[in-house]
Amino acid sequence: MEKPYYAVIFTSTRTEGDKGYAEMANEMEALAKKEPGFIGIEAAREDVGITVSYWENLAAIATWKKNLDHDLAQKKGQKEWYSWYKVRICLVEREYEFNTSTP
Amino acid sequence: MEKPYYAVIFTSTRTEGDKGYAEMANEMEALAKKEPGFIGIEAAREDVGITVSYWENLAAIATWKKNLDHDLAQKKGQKEWYSWYKVRICLVEREYEFNTSTP
Repeated sequence: MEKPYYAVIFTSTRTEGDKGYAEMANEMEALAKKEPGFIGIEAAREDVGITVSYWENLAAIATWKKNLDHDLAQKKGQKEWYSWYKVRICLVEREYEFNTSTP
Repeated sequence: MEKPYYAVIFTSTRTEGDKGYAEMANEMEALAKKEPGFIGIEAAREDVGITVSYWENLAAIATWKKNLDHDLAQKKGQKEWYSWYKVRICLVEREYEFNTSTP
């Protein structure tokens, strides 16, 4: 790893019904990708939804959060979509990778 | 947050077929829960699988990794199950939570 970077772990449980959620989630992801300092995003949902986004620094996360809050507020309350969520802002201290295509 | 703690973000893509994967994944989760320093685990899989486990300190993660490697080696190579994976060890610096049942 060249430089330290950050992970935002967003775990959540959904309320019943879509209520525009899927569309919003796609938009939010597209929005994140345009942010300065954005590195990547990964998401999956089964019983619980986990979205992890990666950022160059805390300032980028703060800017993203501000945009996200603003955007969500303009649309629907988060309470419509989530029965529970938790956000963790984490410093990635170490990483390793495995790939079948690696010789 | 009372004390700093750690998150291990494990992201992966699967090979074709189960090949004992589901059983192994359940066992590994049960094993993790018995480890000293274990706090919790959350997992979901769609295109990508994301498992995040939470630990009290780096020593607990190191012990868990050693047990995991040993157990996996006794069973099947990780290469049978995963076409790609990445492990990130992260210090949780900040967190906040939303719950509909919170007054």
